[in-house]
Amino acid sequence: MFIIHVFLQVKKDCIQQFKEITLDNARNTLREPGAVRFDVVQDQDDSSRFIFVEVYKSASDLDHHKTTEHYARWAGAVDEFLVEPRSRVLLENVFPDDAGWTSPEV
Amino acid sequence: MFIIHVFLQVKKDCIQQFKEITLDNARNTLREPGAVRFDVVQDQDDSSRFIFVEVYKSASDLDHHKTTEHYARWAGAVDEFLVEPRSRVLLENVFPDDAGWTSPEV
Repeated sequence: MFIIHVFLQVKKDCIQQFKEITLDNARNTLREPGAVRFDVVQDQDDSSRFIFVEVYKSASDLDHHKTTEHYARWAGAVDEFLVEPRSRVLLENVFPDDAGWTSPEV
Repeated sequence: MFIIHVFLQVKKDCIQQFKEITLDNARNTLREPGAVRFDVVQDQDDSSRFIFVEVYKSASDLDHHKTTEHYARWAGAVDEFLVEPRSRVLLENVFPDDAGWTSPEV
């Protein structure tokens, strides 16, 4: 699996708008054949901080994601909601192995 | 969902041992009724860095996890493999909603 964790800090008065555009992106991303997961999680101690846990079958599936309309819509709108530019880390799975990754039921 | 991301940096000559004790912990954790996920992922750019993505149904399910034999076995062995103490962040799900989280097929 080709995995990306994205770290975002959102302006406190923009959290609702941020969630709306992010849910649109997450739901549509899961319809891409190479996307396995797009979890959006929020820090319990600082509600302005979010992490995206994105799992793709391969690097080219992430490349494809970046060409979609829903990604362009999200990326074109998100910057004004952020305190600072988002950061990311690229990861690969140790556990489970490739066969064990299931998609959410949405 | 009650979610914890754990960040660990492992000594380069201990990565294999770290993976072995961690897989034991991850597999056994998924047998706990309140545990939904225990993903172990490794940084593509720095193979000494790992993140655990642990998802529990509730805070009390994480409390229970900390009482298990497999957790004690892992926690008792891991420190000597780490460059520095591990850190963590507590999170909650924005997407998917609680019904959408599936466990891996392992």
